[in-house]
Amino acid sequence: MAGPCAVESRQQILAAARGVAAAGASMLRGGAFKPRTSPRSFQGLGREGLELLREASRETGLPVVTEVLDPRDVELVAEHAAMLQVGSRSMQNFPLLREVGRSGHPVLLKRGAAATIDEFLLAADYILAEGNDRVILCERGVRGFDPSTRNLLDLAAVPILQSRTDAPVVVDPSHGTGRADLVPVMARAAVAAGADGILVEVHPDPESALSDREQALRLTEFGDLVEDLERWLPLAGRRIARTLNTATSTPEAGAST
Amino acid sequence: MAGPCAVESRQQILAAARGVAAAGASMLRGGAFKPRTSPRSFQGLGREGLELLREASRETGLPVVTEVLDPRDVELVAEHAAMLQVGSRSMQNFPLLREVGRSGHPVLLKRGAAATIDEFLLAADYILAEGNDRVILCERGVRGFDPSTRNLLDLAAVPILQSRTDAPVVVDPSHGTGRADLVPVMARAAVAAGADGILVEVHPDPESALSDREQALRLTEFGDLVEDLERWLPLAGRRIARTLNTATSTPEAGAST
Amino acid sequence: MAGPCAVESRQQILAAARGVAAAGASMLRGGAFKPRTSPRSFQGLGREGLELLREASRETGLPVVTEVLDPRDVELVAEHAAMLQVGSRSMQNFPLLREVGRSGHPVLLKRGAAATIDEFLLAADYILAEGNDRVILCERGVRGFDPSTRNLLDLAAVPILQSRTDAPVVVDPSHGTGRADLVPVMARAAVAAGADGILVEVHPDPESALSDREQALRLTEFGDLVEDLERWLPLAGRRIARTLNTATSTPEAGAST
Amino acid sequence: MAGPCAVESRQQILAAARGVAAAGASMLRGGAFKPRTSPRSFQGLGREGLELLREASRETGLPVVTEVLDPRDVELVAEHAAMLQVGSRSMQNFPLLREVGRSGHPVLLKRGAAATIDEFLLAADYILAEGNDRVILCERGVRGFDPSTRNLLDLAAVPILQSRTDAPVVVDPSHGTGRADLVPVMARAAVAAGADGILVEVHPDPESALSDREQALRLTEFGDLVEDLERWLPLAGRRIARTLNTATSTPEAGAST
Repeated sequence: MAGPCAVESRQQILAAARGVAAAGASMLRGGAFKPRTSPRSFQGLGREGLELLREASRETGLPVVTEVLDPRDVELVAEHAAMLQVGSRSMQNFPLLREVGRSGHPVLLKRGAAATIDEFLLAADYILAEGNDRVILCERGVRGFDPSTRNLLDLAAVPILQSRTDAPVVVDPSHGTGRADLVPVMARAAVAAGADGILVEVHPDPESALSDREQALRLTEFGDLVEDLERWLPLAGRRIARTLNTATSTPEAGAST
Repeated sequence: MAGPCAVESRQQILAAARGVAAAGASMLRGGAFKPRTSPRSFQGLGREGLELLREASRETGLPVVTEVLDPRDVELVAEHAAMLQVGSRSMQNFPLLREVGRSGHPVLLKRGAAATIDEFLLAADYILAEGNDRVILCERGVRGFDPSTRNLLDLAAVPILQSRTDAPVVVDPSHGTGRADLVPVMARAAVAAGADGILVEVHPDPESALSDREQALRLTEFGDLVEDLERWLPLAGRRIARTLNTATSTPEAGAST
Repeated sequence: MAGPCAVESRQQILAAARGVAAAGASMLRGGAFKPRTSPRSFQGLGREGLELLREASRETGLPVVTEVLDPRDVELVAEHAAMLQVGSRSMQNFPLLREVGRSGHPVLLKRGAAATIDEFLLAADYILAEGNDRVILCERGVRGFDPSTRNLLDLAAVPILQSRTDAPVVVDPSHGTGRADLVPVMARAAVAAGADGILVEVHPDPESALSDREQALRLTEFGDLVEDLERWLPLAGRRIARTLNTATSTPEAGAST
Repeated sequence: MAGPCAVESRQQILAAARGVAAAGASMLRGGAFKPRTSPRSFQGLGREGLELLREASRETGLPVVTEVLDPRDVELVAEHAAMLQVGSRSMQNFPLLREVGRSGHPVLLKRGAAATIDEFLLAADYILAEGNDRVILCERGVRGFDPSTRNLLDLAAVPILQSRTDAPVVVDPSHGTGRADLVPVMARAAVAAGADGILVEVHPDPESALSDREQALRLTEFGDLVEDLERWLPLAGRRIARTLNTATSTPEAGAST
């Protein structure tokens, strides 16, 4: 799953979508509603962003995963995207978890920055309790004490989660490190740790990005990453899924058996 | 500010309210909507809980602070309570922050378990950006590595926050330690650290509590705590506020100048 | 207990010793052997520093506590100082713990930056196991994630440690915050939390200090702190000890019953 | 590098050494001096353990790496082992770092549980400053908040360290997780992250181990791990080194180019 942190313009999201599709991505990611630490930061294009994502999806054939922040927006986002993302800061937003559960739509649930494995699985239980078992869990790093990286990527969470749930487990090395230079190697390590998919931030022009520019790969770097992962995936008994089967109860993610 | 973790029954909340009022509390706390880690835990009485809180408030004269979890409930909760609590897990629930901001109601904003001081202040900025400056900040402990306590109470946050904002800063030693035996001494330390108020969990019968029983004080213990704090407050240049002036833009909390 | 981070010169340590003695300190602290993160930082004056400390002690009557880093230096340091400090980085330096245990000298054991309460008490057990029960435990902050402070001062450790051991528990708000502006308020909070003593860095001229200049109080600031604490101590049932009785098995620290 | 946590008996270390040699290990690890949290835990066999390690080394041809805790033991340990280990708790034991530096012997330096990358590199600088550049850095997990694992293995440290130093970087998934079931998958992830070697605890009979039994692999499990890694290593441009060249200034570790 690849794409920019935020949808910024029609031109930007179409360039990103075409680029990641050409490089072999299975899904397009991109934020229309952005959870920003400061109210003065760019908050996303909202409904317009959703429409641009749908256009990019139609043109490239890539299904879209995008974040929903507000339980009142779940229906709207579900109309525009194949998968709903519940972000790290919302992992224990219980009204939102219930609403995405009720939607029946596939959900990508990201681990909270201070969440234990138990708390992460119990958050997923809120979605399951509404009868929606199409949940993908995403390890994206926890809060650490070392300023060298934005978060501390906990790859041991991958096998632990897999031993405790049937849900696919994907890894986000972009937020997990906050550094574009570390994304390829940590994506590879995530595959070796058994991840069912990889979620990466890719931007056609990282320098001009309105958010997370330090951690976005260029399109050529993403192409190199896919090529590299294709060498490692067979050892993990995996291949890159070219389609996302959202009709089944266990949606396939970036890389699957 | 004192009261049970959750409103459990008419009898329980009235007993708690009468008890904390008699002991000298300035506000009644109690949860109607509970953010529980597991969907199988008691989730609170909801609207019925709000009505019981209003009844307890009318009978005792204590204003009520209670948590709101869902942006769709802000109006309802604001009709029943003098102050809206945004809990630790919701500190970066931006739609909720905007909605409590728009309500114009006083807000008690609790620090997230992995939030830096900067992130905490920026979360408060979401409320202020809606034109609502009636915000109280609450330090309630951050995630630590030592299982001796539920959280690691960061009392240095009190003077740091006070140096960076005009908002009152209160401390919750109940969640900050998770242990009733540590609440009185840490409440005292919070006063010495300059806290503008203290938020404590008090239950008429902790053993029977449906949540957080390990950290709730008995009514007699709360009475002893208030007596003890009354000895320390003058040194901090404080006294216990007997009324909460919710008409001003900086609502007074438990202990104030 | 007060004094500079490091002994830097005869003039500096004598000025510091006279100043803290006049302000009411019970002990002089100062490092001759400094555990510095980088080998290129000032490493302390070593044996010369010890002699200067002894001179400052004789002149002011203040007993000295100073750090020992190397088990081979325990005898030398014990000849020059009334109390041996085992620093945070050495909390699990087991050969050193055994050696200070064998010395029979009073020991100030500081908590490691990532040590649980259990690990801290077990480190003290290494000293006790050698037949030396003259141990003082020092809470000095643990590693946190917030860059606002150097460490995260865990004041709840004070009552927890006191409930589990007879050893006096002192607090170091200088390392616990890393910020001189926070030292006085956190010293006060430590007293309220029940601390048996306070360890603070004081320098006659902080701007010129060779280490830890951001966290050192000026002499006048230290005088103000002692005055302030003298208002708070009676509430905690304490007074400032004017002499350190190093002959007993439970040496009195800065503030004692 | 593989072997038991501690040397427990002649029979145990010889069985372990033969087993790991047969499975393809490059070095034998095993502790004679054990840094134990409690003084009442098994502290290692000391000098006798060193002799048993030397015997095991002679019989199997595997060079030995073993921990040294006390600067006074450096010469003794260097006489018995090809490489000196400075453990996690000793990462900032500066007298020990200087002494192993002076020895000129290869050193395996493990990261402290709360050490930043900067602090880790500066600790290595203490060894380098004595003219000894035969240093291998070992990531072994940092202190985390989740009780699911003993430590939080920080695999991003591998590429970060490699970008900042020429020293080989190895990973210890045994301490990094504390769980034998996670060791194989995290060893594989470490190889994918670019590790220059792997350090694993292997015991001929984990159930009877005197320390760390939960994290030790059986000999057959270690054999399977080596086989698995041999499939992954070529992708990382690596092979398992069959000899350790301790004569060069950059000693080869478990897996090398």
